[in-house]
Amino acid sequence: MAAPLDFPCPISADDGAVVLLGHGGGGLLSQRLLEQVILPSLGATDGVLLDAASLTTEAGELAFSTDGHVVRPLEFPGGDIGALAVFGTVNDLAMLGATPLALSLGLILEEGLPLSTLSRVLSSAAAAAARCGVSVVTGDTKVVERGKADGLFITTAGIGRIPAGVSIGPSAIRSGDAILVSGDLGRHGLAILAAREELGFSTSLESDLAPLHGSVQALLTAGLELHALRDLTRGGLAAALHELCRDAGLGGLVHEAVVPVHAAVAAACELLGLDPLTMASEGRFVMMLPASQAQDALELLRHEQSSAAVIGRIGGEALLLETSLGVRRPLELGRGELLPRIC
Amino acid sequence: MAAPLDFPCPISADDGAVVLLGHGGGGLLSQRLLEQVILPSLGATDGVLLDAASLTTEAGELAFSTDGHVVRPLEFPGGDIGALAVFGTVNDLAMLGATPLALSLGLILEEGLPLSTLSRVLSSAAAAAARCGVSVVTGDTKVVERGKADGLFITTAGIGRIPAGVSIGPSAIRSGDAILVSGDLGRHGLAILAAREELGFSTSLESDLAPLHGSVQALLTAGLELHALRDLTRGGLAAALHELCRDAGLGGLVHEAVVPVHAAVAAACELLGLDPLTMASEGRFVMMLPASQAQDALELLRHEQSSAAVIGRIGGEALLLETSLGVRRPLELGRGELLPRIC
Repeated sequence: MAAPLDFPCPISADDGAVVLLGHGGGGLLSQRLLEQVILPSLGATDGVLLDAASLTTEAGELAFSTDGHVVRPLEFPGGDIGALAVFGTVNDLAMLGATPLALSLGLILEEGLPLSTLSRVLSSAAAAAARCGVSVVTGDTKVVERGKADGLFITTAGIGRIPAGVSIGPSAIRSGDAILVSGDLGRHGLAILAAREELGFSTSLESDLAPLHGSVQALLTAGLELHALRDLTRGGLAAALHELCRDAGLGGLVHEAVVPVHAAVAAACELLGLDPLTMASEGRFVMMLPASQAQDALELLRHEQSSAAVIGRIGGEALLLETSLGVRRPLELGRGELLPRIC
Repeated sequence: MAAPLDFPCPISADDGAVVLLGHGGGGLLSQRLLEQVILPSLGATDGVLLDAASLTTEAGELAFSTDGHVVRPLEFPGGDIGALAVFGTVNDLAMLGATPLALSLGLILEEGLPLSTLSRVLSSAAAAAARCGVSVVTGDTKVVERGKADGLFITTAGIGRIPAGVSIGPSAIRSGDAILVSGDLGRHGLAILAAREELGFSTSLESDLAPLHGSVQALLTAGLELHALRDLTRGGLAAALHELCRDAGLGGLVHEAVVPVHAAVAAACELLGLDPLTMASEGRFVMMLPASQAQDALELLRHEQSSAAVIGRIGGEALLLETSLGVRRPLELGRGELLPRIC
């Protein structure tokens, strides 16, 4: 799948180029930073460095994942950075079919952060971990001078156990697979935007922040053949589909009319010129599995979220969106600079 | 061991208290932040949250560790934040006797960071990982606005394998154990101080940054009964001994005259009013083992560093320093605010 060619994106470590805010947005710029600077510098020439890695040990397969969290504000409707950090890592592990075994918590604190804030978000992290049946077993705390961080950054890592026989990933995606989403898109992004007062709008909608390993375990227990899973964080559905299809070497078709988006999210996107398909969720995932199993999967997902939906199918060479008007066009990646620091 | 009572240290999440720079220094303030705010908020009421945790799995013991890195400047004589991040986590694993299996790398980038800098430190991280026979298998990148971070923060996590039968930790420390250090103290702290131009001194001494798992494996292979190991990062030897003795419920006696300190480190400490025992190293550790095995251990350690030394013995209730003048006084923790961001 060719990336759009009309988007100026100078990125090279050699010519005085610098990190741009958009490099963190989960869109095209993020992808290029990863592929053109980070992976080559690390010597990861195969171009794949997943959100979570599986490790083969004598005991079977382990999943290993890390996530940095720089969300602004630290506390938002429906969650805070502590719960986000824990669920974010649990969800990365879940996307390999893993249940969490242990978490680590790396804190970077800005001088001047109220200890009461720190205490609240850590209590929230502990409650989130307890809800997932996992513990924070190791940690680290650093402090930087006032003005050298923004309150609090949390980087979590997690280890999970992948059940025997489970192998979920883009290489398992097949032409003809159904594409499902586990619920409506973009509530997290909307909640964060609304919580930033400068945008001048409000909503009663909260973040969809939630752990996903329970849903994944239910799907696996039902014997469904899950080919690929991806949580819909930065860059939203568009980024997740682009990454999965690129790594699978396949295209797909998504029907815009059946992609579940809450009316408040749709209205805010229209107001702000945003695309709901690029809005972040923190409690939703996209899944590919054999089309013959799509209805069974959908029923299970709807136990958790009635808005879960089959939204398209894998196939062809290009990743396309059929709009509500019946027009097919490339499904576009977000450009990344519009929604910094949503997770 | 009672903490010094004369040091004002208001720390509570309830009364408007905030994070201070000294909370990150590895000294008394760091200890109190951990014990009075972080651990209670996380519900970790047993008061122990180690630099690395051991996990019992079906295949044996795994070690799991995380470390945030906020060193300033990003590149310094003898290393950079990339190598520091990798060796720091490898060393935390090594302190449990573990060899590294896999690393994760969480990047927080400030808008405006030159991509050339990013590329250099990531190449350095990759070289450091290769030197340790381990790979970075998963990662994450976030970007924050200009002025909301300081160039680049790296949080690494690591998984290691603990050999069967190895159980290293403070609870294994026994009265009568010898205390050894693996080399001279404080070169890393000195190199960082010199690299910060505002301090107005220079040195040809480089950071001692180095991986420690090789030395630990050599000691284990020789059949030595390692009771406890701790790397001498933030807070230096003083912090490491305080933590180990506190967790062991024992005291000890250290002879200042035999603690190895390079002349340049000693001179800089005198000039700046610093205590070499609180200066950070990034390639040194302290070890407790049966006194009868101390000479064998010393010979092995001296293959790597000729300055390795037996510096004291575990015993009694208080952790004491016998000064060069023969006076015994409590071995003091650093106060933490003098050397921010050395790792």
